[in-house]
Amino acid sequence: MTALRRAAIVAVGSELLTPSKLDTNSLHITDQLNRLGLDVVAKAVVGDAREELTHMIRALLGRVDVLILCGGLGPTDDDVTREAVAAALERPLAEDDAITARLRERFKARGFAMPMPEINRRQAMVPAGAVVIENTKGSAPGLWIDHDGKTVLLLPGPPRELKPMLAALVEGPLRERSSGEPLVSRVVRIAGRIESDVDQVLQPLYREWAVAVPAISATILAAPGAIELHVSARASSLELVERALDTAVQRVVSVIGADVYSTDGGKLEQVVGELLAARGLHIAVAESCTGGLITSRLTDVPGSSRYVDQSIITYSNEAKTELLGVPTELLNAHGAVSEPVALAMADGIRVRADADVGVGVTGIAGPTGGTPEKPVGMVVVAVVTASDRRCRTFRFFGEREQVKFQASQSALDMVRRLLS
Amino acid sequence: MTALRRAAIVAVGSELLTPSKLDTNSLHITDQLNRLGLDVVAKAVVGDAREELTHMIRALLGRVDVLILCGGLGPTDDDVTREAVAAALERPLAEDDAITARLRERFKARGFAMPMPEINRRQAMVPAGAVVIENTKGSAPGLWIDHDGKTVLLLPGPPRELKPMLAALVEGPLRERSSGEPLVSRVVRIAGRIESDVDQVLQPLYREWAVAVPAISATILAAPGAIELHVSARASSLELVERALDTAVQRVVSVIGADVYSTDGGKLEQVVGELLAARGLHIAVAESCTGGLITSRLTDVPGSSRYVDQSIITYSNEAKTELLGVPTELLNAHGAVSEPVALAMADGIRVRADADVGVGVTGIAGPTGGTPEKPVGMVVVAVVTASDRRCRTFRFFGEREQVKFQASQSALDMVRRLLS
Repeated sequence: MTALRRAAIVAVGSELLTPSKLDTNSLHITDQLNRLGLDVVAKAVVGDAREELTHMIRALLGRVDVLILCGGLGPTDDDVTREAVAAALERPLAEDDAITARLRERFKARGFAMPMPEINRRQAMVPAGAVVIENTKGSAPGLWIDHDGKTVLLLPGPPRELKPMLAALVEGPLRERSSGEPLVSRVVRIAGRIESDVDQVLQPLYREWAVAVPAISATILAAPGAIELHVSARASSLELVERALDTAVQRVVSVIGADVYSTDGGKLEQVVGELLAARGLHIAVAESCTGGLITSRLTDVPGSSRYVDQSIITYSNEAKTELLGVPTELLNAHGAVSEPVALAMADGIRVRADADVGVGVTGIAGPTGGTPEKPVGMVVVAVVTASDRRCRTFRFFGEREQVKFQASQSALDMVRRLLS
Repeated sequence: MTALRRAAIVAVGSELLTPSKLDTNSLHITDQLNRLGLDVVAKAVVGDAREELTHMIRALLGRVDVLILCGGLGPTDDDVTREAVAAALERPLAEDDAITARLRERFKARGFAMPMPEINRRQAMVPAGAVVIENTKGSAPGLWIDHDGKTVLLLPGPPRELKPMLAALVEGPLRERSSGEPLVSRVVRIAGRIESDVDQVLQPLYREWAVAVPAISATILAAPGAIELHVSARASSLELVERALDTAVQRVVSVIGADVYSTDGGKLEQVVGELLAARGLHIAVAESCTGGLITSRLTDVPGSSRYVDQSIITYSNEAKTELLGVPTELLNAHGAVSEPVALAMADGIRVRADADVGVGVTGIAGPTGGTPEKPVGMVVVAVVTASDRRCRTFRFFGEREQVKFQASQSALDMVRRLLS
């Protein structure tokens, strides 16, 4: 038997061809296959249309060693994957009595008074020669078909059924037959730099990596305020590839320095939370333009009650004065969006909340409210402790929600740097 | 020339075959094509691999009237779409001097001192017979090829280049050749019900719609705390289909009633904001388990400073007492997660912020901290005004962030109902 190397994934379901729904199963499947050394060379989405699916299966099967179909295994007329595979491979469909018996049992065990509807027997129809894969989370069994030296897998669409089934295959038969050249990725997260700058400072590394053994490849994914460097490598064993990636990630850290906040894909709010918890510090945030987003992100982390007691959202000037003690004169002299006010907000919340770290954020989220001196996207962040006072003025671009996110990202990052 | 009816979309780019990136262009393209009456029968993703792409183009071209390729039009060796199309259609590639001239001009206009690198001339290579489509936002022109009664379109990958180019095609040549049976969708958003309940009460409508002219189809997309009903129809004109959808959406509202909060896809925080602004009311939120998420969502809406002055995030019991005046005895007697405490939080923030509507939210977001009496996911929401006091205890399921989101959704929805 030839080792499996090239794979394709077909997601089945008409809803996946509407303007509002994406196939996301293929991301998880790709990750699992890559770790086995399988390259995904194409992905496709086809509706609940037997002829269309049959055609796509034939077209892809000519190009790959493994074809994974995902979805369309339910009991209704719309579920055509079994039939399309049978047609494409020219194998007759027949009822597998063992599956029917298990379906009936499952139906009974769930406490229904009536017997299983006969339509459900569709789920027991199996192309000749297929091996049944148990579904521990649902009724539709998976199917494994060896065909002309290729492997065709039918997996259920719901992720909670798909994932355990795929995990068992990856641990077992898929691993046994795969090429053994795993491809693994690491995610390095970076704050305080723009994409082109990261790209430029990494150029020497890219050149080294291109000729290294194993070769390392890198891709930058950038959204406003969030830059991720995905570093990948392929080697003959998982151990080798992990070791190569350890080294590569360390090189990135040595080049980018303190702007790297995570080398394992961890979120900034997690990193900040760990720093606070490790030092037994409490944080309190005075939020104006972020409207609660910073504290919401901090409290997205399980266990954040160890370092968050309270925060205050002061949208109006009056609230800044009343709740944080920002002097009216300061607001009048400098305006709400100014370094003196951001610092006064941070001081105010730190003292009033009896916190170790106080954060003040004020800015113009837009789309209106900007002036030539203080344009939309201008945000001032202050971070204060008993011994340190830092304040920075930023200019962000994008829609209101993007400005809010970038402001929260910069504020969390300033806290991170102060504590690091 | 036959009217165009069936379409397929191919997204080109190796990054779209990694575990971390999805093709999202196809959603926008699908929406635009549907409005012209074109059905998308398949979508595919192929890497920067000429042979693979050539194969996919051939396979799909046999099944559709329009094939749209998106991406892979840049100037580097990785950009193989032009070559793959030329190979698949067996048309020679030749340099289009007019494109080269425009590329050189564009390069000069951008103020580069050096002349355009020769590699950029790749972008001027055109399969014989292709019509060039101007790119107003970038360097790669699009291409339109009529081939054996079918249409092949090459569009650039970056959304900001793709969207205006597609818009011009949809207004012009694509519209002229399309079947004229537009398919349009509306999004109805529903709160306070679960998916199966919505599905059940709509069964009579589904049956009517199946035999109506035009037929109306409906799909429910459900995430924790957020149910969307997508209602679609196809008719011979946009006017007819819009009218049919108006009626259909009104029928949904009459069946679901006040649980529908939006019939145009509007978000709950927008709907609540409009209600507050229309009545000149101010809202203030005392957030415990939601950690600022409710106020962050309220302030995601432009102009929300009209109705949000301040909110307070009280994570600890001490903060609830200090900042909101929740009596220690109440906390001791009932615990922080209780209706009396939620009401006291709402009362406290309403009075202290001098707001019209006060909201108090307290709960157990998890993953730890639950007890048999007060399990993870238990959330209490109170909404008070001068004349009304409402309080409800919910039990949500899911991860911490999902519990937070559902809690924020329920709180906003209680405000909506109170103001409606």
